[in-house]
Amino acid sequence: MAVGIGDLVSRRVREAPPAFFVPPPVPPTYDFDQGVPAPEIYPLEDLAHYAAAALTTYGPAACAYVGGEGYEDLSYGCGGLRQVLAGRIAERQGRAVGPLGVMLFNGSAQGLATVAAAFCEPGDGLVVEASSFPCMVGYQAATGAEVVTADLDGDGMVLESLERRLDELEARGIKPKLVYTIPTFQVPTGSCMPLERRQRLVELVQRRGVVLIEDACYQELYYDEPPPPSLLSLDDSGLVLQSDSFSKMLAPGLRMGWLAGTPEALGAVAVARQDLGVSQWLARAVQLYLEDGKLDPHLDMVRSVYTRKRDVALAALRTHCGDYVDFAVPGGGIYFWLELSDGVDWDQVRERAALAGVACRPGELYAGDESGRRFLRMAFLQVPDDEIERGVAVLGQALKESVLA
Amino acid sequence: MAVGIGDLVSRRVREAPPAFFVPPPVPPTYDFDQGVPAPEIYPLEDLAHYAAAALTTYGPAACAYVGGEGYEDLSYGCGGLRQVLAGRIAERQGRAVGPLGVMLFNGSAQGLATVAAAFCEPGDGLVVEASSFPCMVGYQAATGAEVVTADLDGDGMVLESLERRLDELEARGIKPKLVYTIPTFQVPTGSCMPLERRQRLVELVQRRGVVLIEDACYQELYYDEPPPPSLLSLDDSGLVLQSDSFSKMLAPGLRMGWLAGTPEALGAVAVARQDLGVSQWLARAVQLYLEDGKLDPHLDMVRSVYTRKRDVALAALRTHCGDYVDFAVPGGGIYFWLELSDGVDWDQVRERAALAGVACRPGELYAGDESGRRFLRMAFLQVPDDEIERGVAVLGQALKESVLA
Repeated sequence: MAVGIGDLVSRRVREAPPAFFVPPPVPPTYDFDQGVPAPEIYPLEDLAHYAAAALTTYGPAACAYVGGEGYEDLSYGCGGLRQVLAGRIAERQGRAVGPLGVMLFNGSAQGLATVAAAFCEPGDGLVVEASSFPCMVGYQAATGAEVVTADLDGDGMVLESLERRLDELEARGIKPKLVYTIPTFQVPTGSCMPLERRQRLVELVQRRGVVLIEDACYQELYYDEPPPPSLLSLDDSGLVLQSDSFSKMLAPGLRMGWLAGTPEALGAVAVARQDLGVSQWLARAVQLYLEDGKLDPHLDMVRSVYTRKRDVALAALRTHCGDYVDFAVPGGGIYFWLELSDGVDWDQVRERAALAGVACRPGELYAGDESGRRFLRMAFLQVPDDEIERGVAVLGQALKESVLA
Repeated sequence: MAVGIGDLVSRRVREAPPAFFVPPPVPPTYDFDQGVPAPEIYPLEDLAHYAAAALTTYGPAACAYVGGEGYEDLSYGCGGLRQVLAGRIAERQGRAVGPLGVMLFNGSAQGLATVAAAFCEPGDGLVVEASSFPCMVGYQAATGAEVVTADLDGDGMVLESLERRLDELEARGIKPKLVYTIPTFQVPTGSCMPLERRQRLVELVQRRGVVLIEDACYQELYYDEPPPPSLLSLDDSGLVLQSDSFSKMLAPGLRMGWLAGTPEALGAVAVARQDLGVSQWLARAVQLYLEDGKLDPHLDMVRSVYTRKRDVALAALRTHCGDYVDFAVPGGGIYFWLELSDGVDWDQVRERAALAGVACRPGELYAGDESGRRFLRMAFLQVPDDEIERGVAVLGQALKESVLA
């Protein structure tokens, strides 16, 4: 028998979890599945303008591997954009990380994968929230380290549970290396960790000597009031790295995310990185956009659109689904996390909703096990305002018809 | 003692080879170091035009994670550009791989890293050319597999040496998994593998049952006559994957590379991938550029500029350096590979050339050991035509002054 390519794959492929992004079997009429920005927020004209401006301002250097700032661009990405982002972090988070304290990635997912590879290997342990961003969990598991979960409550990761998991790992001879949290508008639950717990979490990782990855990609996307200070801003040990991205606030199609932390921490990540930096051209375009002061007015608009859509979805959920689901009102982010009442049959809801044209993402994809089966993640931004209520009404009907006798 | 972040890094960081891209200590007057395109070939106006056209043609979908073609965009990149590239591969290489036989990456380096991770793990072995692209060698070593080298001659990888290395790996209980070659204008030597050896190489990997990665990023950049058919075009087993990129023919700042192969092979690579695809926006811009038939006339211009600069460098090398170095005339690619004569002191040449403002890249960076010390890689594209001769003359003077007594 000739050897085929399928016989030659590595453990990373053989033992990979099932694909996370699986499209609904039929294109839904109401797509509450994809966690994407509202299409109306994309600054199309500004993007075209600054893409052209990057080429006229920087000329051929905007097309090169490295710009004027030097060879660090190959492992950190465009120095000009790093400088601007470092300034923004200093101003808003009070941490002067400098341009070597910012590393650009082809979307924050690539950064999360790289930081996992920089710190974790077989024999190490990581702790994530009981329901979390499955891509990051998969990247972490691919390092060969063991991934365990800490409980979540309405205020985010439960620290007593985290500490217990760290103890259990150590008792089994596994070295705890990394904690991954989404403290601000957690995915998928939407919770926001209060200041006091943030302070205790940072103190905990400093005391235990583990790396803390703060996924902060929703921190600018609050509806009502700004979230408490970031974990990065509360740390003075260098053990906290913050992941952020333009995907949800500007456009996923930019594929422009970043990590921020001390230059020492990012120096380690740079060694683990496996590409030659991000697009100079796109980075220069985003840099000029930020330098022109365009981002903050844009974010004001984004927050206003997202709040309006959240309110439309909230009213519709209360009207049509309130008898069958429980949920907290999210203060930011882009999802509702719906917990089905005991009297509702989950399998029936899923089938009926799909048949009726409504797609939501099943909760078990986030929990990684059966414990998520009582939940649905509902992303609402990409559905036009006037269709949100109709879609939620269809979902409500599916719920009603799935009540157990 | 508190634990610092430096105490927590993984083997991938602890055991990484020294950084490959190290800038010359002082910015050189004549930069023959960086392997980059001639800045005059970047199609600045077309890029600005098609970036804007992508937004008007596709609207907000050009800013999203996935375009109209579906969720595969998250692991394969923009379906529209994959379709166009698959058509080009069918037309020019006679292989109908289809859009799921093309996978876009944030530059070909990311693709090379991902394909290594998809097939290699501890206990496996890889074979690369004795002097090769160091980034890929580093990515391969990071998988935990063992990397060994096969000899090179003027026609590329020596197949008898390759077969011996495969035998030696097996004899030591290590499973050969992957062969990485740059058959067309090899880096750094510039050699081009003849058809007959290509056929035997493809037959060899089929017989041995190993994956063959063909790095073809210079295949369009020939000076005199087109190279022989690609390894991908000669394979019918699915064991050959081809890596290619727009970096050297269009602009590195696009960060747009790709892998081509059978859908089965790319399916395995997709599982190993650790990000959410490439920029839809940039991919759509490149797609429209190709659909408008812009690439082939551009490549005609690029070949003419590169041939002219090769000829300028060649004449200067013969005039100023011919007594001290040996080299083959490259038929394509973007480098000269200079072998110092026995009578020249390498350490002196390096120091004198740097002091006089000439940067070339030391050969040992490609060989990974002392065997490369007799070589210099000279990239000439980014130096203006009228400065190439002056720079080569300065190098010749440094060589002359370094002749051993």
